[in-house]
Amino acid sequence: MPSETPVISIDLGGTKISTALVARDGHIIAQDYQETHAAQGPEAVIRRILDGARRVVAQAGVRSSQAAAIGICAPGPLDTETGEVVSPPNLPGWDHVPVRQLVEDGLGAPTYLEKDANAAALGEHRFGAGRGTQHMIYVTVSTGIGGGLILDGRLYRGSCGMAGEVGHITLMRHGPLCGCGNRGCLEALASGTAIAREARERVAHGVPTLIAVLAEKDPERITAKLVAEAASQGDAEAQEIMAEAMNYLGIGMANLVNLFNPELIVIGGGLANIGEKLLEPVQRAIRRHAYAALAQAVQVVPAELGDDVGVLGAAAVALTRIE
Amino acid sequence: MPSETPVISIDLGGTKISTALVARDGHIIAQDYQETHAAQGPEAVIRRILDGARRVVAQAGVRSSQAAAIGICAPGPLDTETGEVVSPPNLPGWDHVPVRQLVEDGLGAPTYLEKDANAAALGEHRFGAGRGTQHMIYVTVSTGIGGGLILDGRLYRGSCGMAGEVGHITLMRHGPLCGCGNRGCLEALASGTAIAREARERVAHGVPTLIAVLAEKDPERITAKLVAEAASQGDAEAQEIMAEAMNYLGIGMANLVNLFNPELIVIGGGLANIGEKLLEPVQRAIRRHAYAALAQAVQVVPAELGDDVGVLGAAAVALTRIE
Repeated sequence: MPSETPVISIDLGGTKISTALVARDGHIIAQDYQETHAAQGPEAVIRRILDGARRVVAQAGVRSSQAAAIGICAPGPLDTETGEVVSPPNLPGWDHVPVRQLVEDGLGAPTYLEKDANAAALGEHRFGAGRGTQHMIYVTVSTGIGGGLILDGRLYRGSCGMAGEVGHITLMRHGPLCGCGNRGCLEALASGTAIAREARERVAHGVPTLIAVLAEKDPERITAKLVAEAASQGDAEAQEIMAEAMNYLGIGMANLVNLFNPELIVIGGGLANIGEKLLEPVQRAIRRHAYAALAQAVQVVPAELGDDVGVLGAAAVALTRIE
Repeated sequence: MPSETPVISIDLGGTKISTALVARDGHIIAQDYQETHAAQGPEAVIRRILDGARRVVAQAGVRSSQAAAIGICAPGPLDTETGEVVSPPNLPGWDHVPVRQLVEDGLGAPTYLEKDANAAALGEHRFGAGRGTQHMIYVTVSTGIGGGLILDGRLYRGSCGMAGEVGHITLMRHGPLCGCGNRGCLEALASGTAIAREARERVAHGVPTLIAVLAEKDPERITAKLVAEAASQGDAEAQEIMAEAMNYLGIGMANLVNLFNPELIVIGGGLANIGEKLLEPVQRAIRRHAYAALAQAVQVVPAELGDDVGVLGAAAVALTRIE
């Protein structure tokens, strides 16, 4: 098949499905968005995935079987070898669903499945902020914190495909409870969820802060985005909460620097949108906590692919497998 | 050259030099020990290295130039590419000494240099506890804590050869000061030095403990080995100090498990000699702090090569390069 044949990429998320036809250079030829409606079960969702893929290839005037390959990214845990999605928290009711096989059978091109953070790492490495690097760590900071590791130029998966659980390294032995059951994980200290939780606790304690005003005293409205907004308006409590979280994010990154000696850390996810405000304290914390020579050797940059990281990551998954 | 030709291996340490002629299967054909006398400077030490190597080949009735290759392990930091030792704390006064070239010129066989923890990882992977594994982390716990990473079956060095600084991941933000200048490093919480420091502080504070008795009230005599001895005799303070240190060692290992998804962690170094007493609390801490699936996938075992880890590690360095 000609080396310019595009790939189909599928970003299966807990709330939406994005499908695209992607050229070898990362150009998105056609794209389609749908809601996942995960509660309707795997069969209905797989049908939507196949419909979305057929729409994007139809837009380009080709058939799905003419795609060079198909890449899918989905929430973990999943099994890259068997191509099964294994009961991810974001797809309730899914249990060992053979997504890879179902999509390959439905669309007629070789299909590859990868967990979302790994796919995003491959996407940023091939098409985004990590182009040309050999040792790159992708970290996504949103409601949770995840990661993908590009080591010696390749995705590193570990012994059972679960490497890169950056969000669950313990940084505070008796720290706040994490969703994983452990205490003091990076995710429990620096994720959007952690920032919102800390803000809610302070508001509940009656601390005077703009956060309470912006949330109109409704704790449900307190999100990391709202805390960041209050911080940018000069609220001292919000600034302290953000500084604490970014300090721990920096300690987590310093630990990655000491262990992996990467040349680049790419930070993506919703929290990355606050940009320099995020990166400056993270970079300072790396300089404080990592070995000087290692801290000097690493750059920390925001992700470049934005909302397309899913489909471009899935495209990179497919391209990596067929090259 | 025949595939059974042995290699020369050189373990250059801050206090002693061990040189050996090693068969391809790890059998030590001949071995030589000397003191380093690092203060005499690089020239004298290199001469001793060459003399030691010539003695071991002479014992086997061959010439050094007949060795298949020469492997050297030395304290970091060093530059694997140029073969220079770069001012390591354990070799005071050494500054960019081209050890690799000097040894190659002196002995007449291709020579390779690697930092000691990486060489130990290669040695345990090829000849010791890690045989047959693809994803193995070697951790040495003695006065300091170091590590070497075997990922996807190969030594992982990172972007400038400094990956694997396991001892300097931050586990306690405002924790005890580490030799590296950072606070709360794993090494500052769980190394032999950390154990002895904590014991000295308790003794200085007048806490009644067998440690003071065994040390005959001389703080200089308080070592991790002495604390372990007091703990094994039932002293509650000593047991608490050891339990705290092993708990932090376990948290550090849990972080490695979450990041690397290794199948095996091999623990070497002086502290590993206390055996099951070390490994049991470390294993429990991994189960408490790492993801369940990842904790189940990893085994933690003591190193197998003992005092020969240096020469067998250096032999593995040479063999890895020529295969």
